[in-house]
Amino acid sequence: MNYSPIVNYLCTMRKLSMDELNRKSVDEFRGATKIPVIVVLENIRSMHNVGSVFRTADAFLIESIYITGYTAQPPRKEIDKTALGATETVSWKYFKTTVEAVMCLREQGYTIYSIEQVDKSISLEQLQTLNFQKIAFIFGNEVTGVEESSIAECDGCIEIPQFGMKHSLNISVAAGIVLWEVARAQVHLRD
Amino acid sequence: MNYSPIVNYLCTMRKLSMDELNRKSVDEFRGATKIPVIVVLENIRSMHNVGSVFRTADAFLIESIYITGYTAQPPRKEIDKTALGATETVSWKYFKTTVEAVMCLREQGYTIYSIEQVDKSISLEQLQTLNFQKIAFIFGNEVTGVEESSIAECDGCIEIPQFGMKHSLNISVAAGIVLWEVARAQVHLRD
Repeated sequence: MNYSPIVNYLCTMRKLSMDELNRKSVDEFRGATKIPVIVVLENIRSMHNVGSVFRTADAFLIESIYITGYTAQPPRKEIDKTALGATETVSWKYFKTTVEAVMCLREQGYTIYSIEQVDKSISLEQLQTLNFQKIAFIFGNEVTGVEESSIAECDGCIEIPQFGMKHSLNISVAAGIVLWEVARAQVHLRD
Repeated sequence: MNYSPIVNYLCTMRKLSMDELNRKSVDEFRGATKIPVIVVLENIRSMHNVGSVFRTADAFLIESIYITGYTAQPPRKEIDKTALGATETVSWKYFKTTVEAVMCLREQGYTIYSIEQVDKSISLEQLQTLNFQKIAFIFGNEVTGVEESSIAECDGCIEIPQFGMKHSLNISVAAGIVLWEVARAQVHLRD
């Protein structure tokens, strides 16, 4: 990347109005062709994180969210606080165990990956080199990650490469990054 | 994207231990070559969001965070709760106004973009087509976005394309997505 001065065109930059954002109504959202991605939220402790993932799933027109284990289900005030209405648009289902969710995903033809740091994980930027039509991502508990028993049911693990001290991202941030990695490949097909 | 069954290699998937994650110490982090990106946080109301951006900046070895306006500065318990130690690694500075932060960035040769939906914004997936060596991103208030006066000081605006009902992402999620978009191009240079 080389620096070159960029023409300053600011005099003409103007924030878009709500009308110009081309936002979908709830009905339009439900009728729209989704990106064939399902997010599995396994034992997520924070309802703030759950709501935030709903909001991101709305933004990227994600097919569905599968809630498993002790992850809280809508409607809950604490989820709505960060979902900001996205629980009304994004479809979701609850499964008592992730294994049941995985069985349901397999029946629908989904390839299933855990987002986890394992010894043979695939680095996220290589996602598009995988062949899939429908893909599901399992995100695990904020502290303990995805359960070993759930990892064992997956087709593999995907890791967000990290270079710092912590090597851990907030789960709603991690979900945003992974969902963007799928959505970015589809931008030219949308809007 | 075509579906093809992926060889199931799960029996050998094993979560990495803390040692295997190759995490940097605070001193190693400070001495490491950073990705030449500075995040400007303008009038961010939620300390949870501020802490989360610190955590992401640590993960992707970001150069610095510039805090402006009424965004809270470390040390604050509410920031630490989500930063999880990243305020000890990621360098940061406070500026009373974003305009002062922008002047400091210009002196260091940074190209500066607001993350905002404007009529001539550049779609995020096109980021790598821009020529820059050092880049700064301004993220604005959770409700009102980046101030018009700050947008006017930028080289342009970058927009995360969104297809749903809300057309708005949590600021810490948006920061994660934008920083990943820069980091993904550098993965092969790291670790």
